[in-house]
Amino acid sequence: MAKRIIIIGANAAGVEAASAARKKDHTAEITLITEEKTAGYSRCGLPFVIGEQIPSFKDLIVYSQAYFQMMKLNLKTETKATAINTKDKTVTAVDKTGATDTLQYDSLVIATGANAFTPPIKGSEKQGIHSLRTLEDGERILQAVQNGAKSAVVMGAGLIGLETGVALTERGLKVTVVEMLPQILPQMLDADMAKLVQEHLQEHGMRILTEKAVEEFLGGDKVTAIMAGGEKIEADLFLSAFGVRANTKLAAEAGIPLGETRGIKTNARMETEVKDVYAVGDCAETPHLITHKPVCQQLGTVAVKQGKVAGINAGGGYALFPGVLGSAVTRLFNIEAGVTGLTEAAAKRAGIEVITGAISSKTRADYYPNALPIKIKLIVEKESQRIIGAQIVGGEEVTQRINALSFAIQKGMTVRELAKADTAYAPPLNETWEPMILAAEMVLMKLR
Amino acid sequence: MAKRIIIIGANAAGVEAASAARKKDHTAEITLITEEKTAGYSRCGLPFVIGEQIPSFKDLIVYSQAYFQMMKLNLKTETKATAINTKDKTVTAVDKTGATDTLQYDSLVIATGANAFTPPIKGSEKQGIHSLRTLEDGERILQAVQNGAKSAVVMGAGLIGLETGVALTERGLKVTVVEMLPQILPQMLDADMAKLVQEHLQEHGMRILTEKAVEEFLGGDKVTAIMAGGEKIEADLFLSAFGVRANTKLAAEAGIPLGETRGIKTNARMETEVKDVYAVGDCAETPHLITHKPVCQQLGTVAVKQGKVAGINAGGGYALFPGVLGSAVTRLFNIEAGVTGLTEAAAKRAGIEVITGAISSKTRADYYPNALPIKIKLIVEKESQRIIGAQIVGGEEVTQRINALSFAIQKGMTVRELAKADTAYAPPLNETWEPMILAAEMVLMKLR
Repeated sequence: MAKRIIIIGANAAGVEAASAARKKDHTAEITLITEEKTAGYSRCGLPFVIGEQIPSFKDLIVYSQAYFQMMKLNLKTETKATAINTKDKTVTAVDKTGATDTLQYDSLVIATGANAFTPPIKGSEKQGIHSLRTLEDGERILQAVQNGAKSAVVMGAGLIGLETGVALTERGLKVTVVEMLPQILPQMLDADMAKLVQEHLQEHGMRILTEKAVEEFLGGDKVTAIMAGGEKIEADLFLSAFGVRANTKLAAEAGIPLGETRGIKTNARMETEVKDVYAVGDCAETPHLITHKPVCQQLGTVAVKQGKVAGINAGGGYALFPGVLGSAVTRLFNIEAGVTGLTEAAAKRAGIEVITGAISSKTRADYYPNALPIKIKLIVEKESQRIIGAQIVGGEEVTQRINALSFAIQKGMTVRELAKADTAYAPPLNETWEPMILAAEMVLMKLR
Repeated sequence: MAKRIIIIGANAAGVEAASAARKKDHTAEITLITEEKTAGYSRCGLPFVIGEQIPSFKDLIVYSQAYFQMMKLNLKTETKATAINTKDKTVTAVDKTGATDTLQYDSLVIATGANAFTPPIKGSEKQGIHSLRTLEDGERILQAVQNGAKSAVVMGAGLIGLETGVALTERGLKVTVVEMLPQILPQMLDADMAKLVQEHLQEHGMRILTEKAVEEFLGGDKVTAIMAGGEKIEADLFLSAFGVRANTKLAAEAGIPLGETRGIKTNARMETEVKDVYAVGDCAETPHLITHKPVCQQLGTVAVKQGKVAGINAGGGYALFPGVLGSAVTRLFNIEAGVTGLTEAAAKRAGIEVITGAISSKTRADYYPNALPIKIKLIVEKESQRIIGAQIVGGEEVTQRINALSFAIQKGMTVRELAKADTAYAPPLNETWEPMILAAEMVLMKLR
């Protein structure tokens, strides 16, 4: 009899799991269940439709209906999984007509993602507080822009908040970002590096308020202003970008254990503590490669990699997910910012003694036109002299430097080895002395 | 008494050595000797002045007179070192007035570079055969362009030949490249990857003739045509870019041993087989990190790194140069091409059994505008499954991927580790599945 594989969730992690399972098992019955109308789209692309770099939300659909048919994946959209029974190995689901169905599985992959989270602030029950997680969220925000919104307040200065804030600024709105912590991108960058990004956003007309909590939503049925740090800020559009929380309700109700991060606990095969049940993507926790502690990284790159591993395992194969470094990058106006491994702040929180070094350089030979500034910060574990983190803010060529340092960290490269590493150069493409190497020299000066 | 350090050569390797020696020893008498009028300029930038990306050859001067003064470096330009006496520890030099001087050294750094090489072809004594090595060479070529040259023949399809060929095409000349071997960039790329670059050059109007030897230079006193593969090719400008040879005459005459590459033999401190005499840059040989065999890599990045090591040692410090991977990159019209480690062909020549894999992908999310094609080829040593080489041809973001793979190779990353590596992504900056990882998957499919 054909194996039955059910996947709850049908975006990055879920579709990748389904595809990998299909490649392993050509006869399995593979069913994807999603509450959403649309499956297989890229959430990461949503801000760029609002910013008009991408013409339509439909362009974000990476996996078409034809793909699901070709791969013989049974896709159930607008269908909500309401219960998992891990003893009977069933999933109960309700479709948009209200019809309930109980589906049998041999392997189950939970890819329920995360939800935007708004803290319990006075007035948060009012209408007009947007978040940006789904295509429909994106369409509502775009509609508000097209209806003539002139100003926006973005609450939270993480990646989603800033990318959307930039998009709204590009559409001509006056944007104010309110962040409770003393810096923007607090999960991603140390304060010194975040400052460079903040200045760039301000130069492009964004107002950034840090160390300001949102105290109240004001207005009638509909929000018209917020109070933040004692200041009343009126706007036409309000975006809640406080953060996301792993969507683990279904798993928790089924008795599938959560971990210390409140994500679903998994092993290296992305299997939960319940046999034949896997969890992947934003709802799953996985070890950090430096601290070895569980983290809930919630990045698209992690979601697809975990999805693939779980899909291979659910399909009868054997694959391991090694853990995460949290490599991430963003483009905000004309600046790119990236991170891999631990920030200095995160290393200190983890009790790791570090030496850091930073260098400001250029992306091309000094004499070559249009060279752009770039700043690299390295975080080095003091005892082993190994690199454990890096942050880069620059005008171009940031992403692949992050990847380079990610590879270096994963292979235990010491800062001395980096200082002597073989690198490539041509005047239009780099400086003779690669900035990563100069940053390593800065650390070495402190170690000597 | 202050230590006396003499450096023969005053560009990338020489100036770096002088600077590093000065930082180690604040009182040493440091003298740089160069035959050239101008010191401290970037040879790598020469094609881009011809191509008009850079306004003037003067812009290529990275180290000004003020730098030499500030660092208290005694710079003797237009002065030819004619002999080294390693017993007496002297260098004999003749300045432009014909005055001979004998200078005493405690440490000597030989950074005599390389010379453009023209094979013994019939008619090669004729005038009008340019090479591009010095500022004056560049000025002569630019002058020919400004005098109305309409066509050019470039002999040799290495980096200098192609970069200059592109520059001349950008200036409106009809350019024909003649290469004896069956592919362009034979030192840098395998034939399959070189083909992509060749097609791009042809699309931009360059004529590329491979497997055609230059048989004769035709014309009166001045060359007006060449015979290549039986075809007569007329042109207004002729560039000899057959290759360069380490300039080791001075060292060899002084009895300083050369190695099997005909470069000057060095140890890890960049010291020759004669005590207190160092050799760096294009004239020095150094081990390859994969084959452990000596190579004469002749790259700017290698020159500055070797120069720094020799300078520290000459200045009384202790520094080691670990060897080279030959990481290199170029931009030709709208395409970037890069290499690190061994090509498939070089691995085979070295007797290494390899598995290769290649992938064509894009530089941004598929739905993001202006995503450019990129192709990555990995060379993996079969027994250890370690990556030993990589080549990339793409529209953008090639350089730092080369650096990433260079770091991976240096730290012994296996292709399995690369397939699971943590990478960064954002729609404007990369695909969710990093192409390097997809290339690793392609290799793994062959290993399974």
